[in-house]
Amino acid sequence: MPLAELTEALRRFRDERNWAQFHTLRNLIVSLNLEASEMLELTQWKNDAEMLALLDEPARREALADECADVLLYLLLIADTAGIDLATAAREKLGKNAEKYPVDKAWGSSRKYTELSDPDTPNRA
Amino acid sequence: MPLAELTEALRRFRDERNWAQFHTLRNLIVSLNLEASEMLELTQWKNDAEMLALLDEPARREALADECADVLLYLLLIADTAGIDLATAAREKLGKNAEKYPVDKAWGSSRKYTELSDPDTPNRA
Amino acid sequence: MPLAELTEALRRFRDERNWAQFHTLRNLIVSLNLEASEMLELTQWKNDAEMLALLDEPARREALADECADVLLYLLLIADTAGIDLATAAREKLGKNAEKYPVDKAWGSSRKYTELSDPDTPNRA
Amino acid sequence: MPLAELTEALRRFRDERNWAQFHTLRNLIVSLNLEASEMLELTQWKNDAEMLALLDEPARREALADECADVLLYLLLIADTAGIDLATAAREKLGKNAEKYPVDKAWGSSRKYTELSDPDTPNRA
Repeated sequence: MPLAELTEALRRFRDERNWAQFHTLRNLIVSLNLEASEMLELTQWKNDAEMLALLDEPARREALADECADVLLYLLLIADTAGIDLATAAREKLGKNAEKYPVDKAWGSSRKYTELSDPDTPNRA
Repeated sequence: MPLAELTEALRRFRDERNWAQFHTLRNLIVSLNLEASEMLELTQWKNDAEMLALLDEPARREALADECADVLLYLLLIADTAGIDLATAAREKLGKNAEKYPVDKAWGSSRKYTELSDPDTPNRA
Repeated sequence: MPLAELTEALRRFRDERNWAQFHTLRNLIVSLNLEASEMLELTQWKNDAEMLALLDEPARREALADECADVLLYLLLIADTAGIDLATAAREKLGKNAEKYPVDKAWGSSRKYTELSDPDTPNRA
Repeated sequence: MPLAELTEALRRFRDERNWAQFHTLRNLIVSLNLEASEMLELTQWKNDAEMLALLDEPARREALADECADVLLYLLLIADTAGIDLATAAREKLGKNAEKYPVDKAWGSSRKYTELSDPDTPNRA
């Protein structure tokens, strides 16, 4: 199901419930943050190995899939409300990131682009 | 560009920079939360009218599109790392939401599904 | 109860449960974010008038007090773990903010300090 | 400097700048979340050892102290606006937590109180 179809299904879902009145840009962005936070809660007190083990437990794996879905659904509502084409925005942002993080400087480094040429902090790689 | 192509482009971007070592599920989920928060920052101190006006300023509108893109990019990396099909998860979650929020009970109400039949709090509609 | 006493009570609470092993700086910061997000959830779908009305409902008022408390408790654990004196840090930060937001430039404006002298965007006041 | 004095200093800071108009409960809670998120950003891509090393770098240590301070300052504004006594709320919440996490059940376990007696998931300790 492509993004346009999902957006169309979301609009129907919203309008059948008369919820457009609550879907201001600000409210939708708060809700996306709440869903992102519920995803973060799945990581609470867990180290990397425990996170991987979580993927083998069907109930927790489904919980992660549900949180991913919730974030996507609010993201589609935000983009639709703001008149933003999400796929285009993502492709363009990936292009900007490629400029901010040129391969030769960013290779094997987790540093922010603003710190990539800082001479005092050697890359980890 | 469908989600599968974007995911493929993201993998290339990550692997050209030798970044898979940093992309644990936990780190990716933290990063998605940080991007969601940058989107929230665009709403700081603004009321609903000011948020709509923001869409008419090209620089701020592009900032919102960029934050939407950043959230989507991390979401795709999380889904890819966890082996989750994002479009399927979203369609299924929308089905669950339809059950949690039946039209006759949820119409015009912003209450959480756990409070939908609370007799003491009349729906706002 | 001053902050030092609260910190002492928190240490006892943690050590009686053998929880220090989980209280890495990173885990504590994630937990503080989750508590902040639970506070944000109390604002979901609500406008300013509805937020004020919430203060008159004892159950929701207590929920807000509890979330405030949870944020403070994690903040004290973070400061204690990092060896930061919270009250001193707050007093010093207030001093920095006073420099970043001089009264004559910031009066009646909600703009970020980086945009305070932007000639194209008149202050709202 | 006790919390009451800090709150008094914050009120003066706010009123000298005519900022009370922006300090709705909702706006303050959003701002607290943004500050919590800036603290989270200090952990991005870092493991526990790297977080400890951060405490030995004066600039990053000060950044952490500043973020802790920002969270406390917004927390004090929220409590002041809502008429909540923060120290009392924290002491009472610690009491509730002690009931939710009895020592004999919670010892050495990072599980949520709702899962403490789940027979299928043995405590880690």
